[in-house]
Amino acid sequence: MIHAAIYHGPGDIRVEEVPDPEIEEPTDAVVRITHTAVCGSDLWFYRGHREEMPEGAGVGHEPMGIVEEVGDKVRHVEPGDRVLSPFSISCGECEFCRKGLQTSCVNGYGWGGDLTGAQGEKVRAPHANGTLVKVPERYADDEGVLESLLPLTDVMCTGHHAAVSAGVEAGDTAIVIGDGAVGLCGVLAAKRLGAERVIAMGHHEDRLEIAEEFGATEVISAEGEEAIEAARETTYGGANHVLECVGMESSMETAAEVARPGGTIGYVGVPAGVETTDFVATMFGKNVGLEGGVAPVRRYVDDLMADVLQGTLDPSPVFTKTVDIEGVPEGYEAMDEREAVKVMVKNE
Amino acid sequence: MIHAAIYHGPGDIRVEEVPDPEIEEPTDAVVRITHTAVCGSDLWFYRGHREEMPEGAGVGHEPMGIVEEVGDKVRHVEPGDRVLSPFSISCGECEFCRKGLQTSCVNGYGWGGDLTGAQGEKVRAPHANGTLVKVPERYADDEGVLESLLPLTDVMCTGHHAAVSAGVEAGDTAIVIGDGAVGLCGVLAAKRLGAERVIAMGHHEDRLEIAEEFGATEVISAEGEEAIEAARETTYGGANHVLECVGMESSMETAAEVARPGGTIGYVGVPAGVETTDFVATMFGKNVGLEGGVAPVRRYVDDLMADVLQGTLDPSPVFTKTVDIEGVPEGYEAMDEREAVKVMVKNE
Repeated sequence: MIHAAIYHGPGDIRVEEVPDPEIEEPTDAVVRITHTAVCGSDLWFYRGHREEMPEGAGVGHEPMGIVEEVGDKVRHVEPGDRVLSPFSISCGECEFCRKGLQTSCVNGYGWGGDLTGAQGEKVRAPHANGTLVKVPERYADDEGVLESLLPLTDVMCTGHHAAVSAGVEAGDTAIVIGDGAVGLCGVLAAKRLGAERVIAMGHHEDRLEIAEEFGATEVISAEGEEAIEAARETTYGGANHVLECVGMESSMETAAEVARPGGTIGYVGVPAGVETTDFVATMFGKNVGLEGGVAPVRRYVDDLMADVLQGTLDPSPVFTKTVDIEGVPEGYEAMDEREAVKVMVKNE
Repeated sequence: MIHAAIYHGPGDIRVEEVPDPEIEEPTDAVVRITHTAVCGSDLWFYRGHREEMPEGAGVGHEPMGIVEEVGDKVRHVEPGDRVLSPFSISCGECEFCRKGLQTSCVNGYGWGGDLTGAQGEKVRAPHANGTLVKVPERYADDEGVLESLLPLTDVMCTGHHAAVSAGVEAGDTAIVIGDGAVGLCGVLAAKRLGAERVIAMGHHEDRLEIAEEFGATEVISAEGEEAIEAARETTYGGANHVLECVGMESSMETAAEVARPGGTIGYVGVPAGVETTDFVATMFGKNVGLEGGVAPVRRYVDDLMADVLQGTLDPSPVFTKTVDIEGVPEGYEAMDEREAVKVMVKNE
């Protein structure tokens, strides 16, 4: 038996004994989790906003660990390898995997649910050839490197997807909406792509400090119309590249309002509570495009890993609290109460 | 005094005497209207969906005619020239005009309202240098050519904007949603850009026949889930390029459903009654982009005019009824009751 975090209803995550994951298909691997995390999107079911979430489901979707066992058809990794996995499983062979849109893999799905979630001691990793990414052996036991790589399982690649989708290129001015882990990673990503000005919009002084550390040239800490006016003023009428890293109705509206006519919003926050569509009319009137969606992490992880390994990219400051597997419920609480930006889970 | 169509409330358009338009600014021209049209978007106020429309407003935004008089600063046209105008006024000199986004012109606005509308005998055309487009003299009195050019004031360029925004290129498969004048022009535009397959979706047999005449390789005449299934089946899972030419909630949802993961929706139908946002979640999940908006006609009209003049583009079959200025109210009725696809208005 292993320990794993299990969903029992809103606000009720418990660490329980569950059966050991085993190889079920020849394309499976079993991975012993060494590092994982709690995601802002985990708060959606934690807060009761995802009614379809079944009681008893394993949770967590940001696994990193050591391969223990592989099925007969697994070629890309072998026992002993340090690996990480994107938040979605992908086969690596279908039309969409080959196109770099692994989140639309025809054989794919997400962690959790029937699978043991990543917030546990071990997982069965289906489609290991397509899904798992090996950390080069030279860095496989470097704790600092591993903690910098862990955000590549989700938030760093998601922030990068926002920047890519918004069309950020060298010399551009970008506005990043949201100071959660994804927004902060969006700042890093925009800088990495060469943005000259990166304006971070958020509500939390401590998080906006991290945004500045990550390269934001300006921060706007205000709400509603005041924030919109400030963003428009400093950009002389709006930015051509807006990263929407929240996914709420108010943030979509802010994004539409601060986008320059003809600009593009890269959106990566899972739409939640987006019920009215004023932002569509706003985008329509000034030909602002909406690009992005659920981030195809697998497409980006190799490039971003290269930068982490050479020391030019380090998203690990998004982790402001660390717990062990027994501390996962406490980690959810800390994120729910905004005491932590993002929680890392380390297994012994 | 001249005759012009005036809005008096939903369903109530009257042709009345109004003062002669005059040069007010040195950048104005006065144009005697020879051809104009009733637009699908005119039905929004006609049907009472635009409560902000003031009683007494001039209506119509698709003018073509002969320049009668110009202000001191008008250089691009002169009295006697046959000209047409996009549905929006643009100065031709600001950032957005230079960028090809004349609908966001900082000095721009639309026809109608305080201006005499285009459904009348004459208009004052502000910013004549930026707005008016001259028909080459060789074709200036060729009635057939003029009727083929008239749709460039709006619907042909709007359909083209949908195709451009959806990223249609040679060899592509495109789905066009909507069999109104804009959708039909979207079919023409997609073919003109080289699309190999153009699938037209609509509800009206007679209009879908025009779609076929315009180059649609397939038509889908069905509603709701049945239409979506048919479109997905014939494209083996959706098209990478979807032209949304309606602007209603159901058509936005259909567009999101028939788009292939990673594809793009070009939308040009003024959003009307789009109140729920299921389509956003659908687009998000499969990384479908939403591009387009109010069409910058002025950007496209020169290129499309060249094709009309050389005989390779003819959108005039969208006009299925012609009236004179006194017949404008009858034209609205015919379009409201879907007896006409689009109504041309010809002044003696």
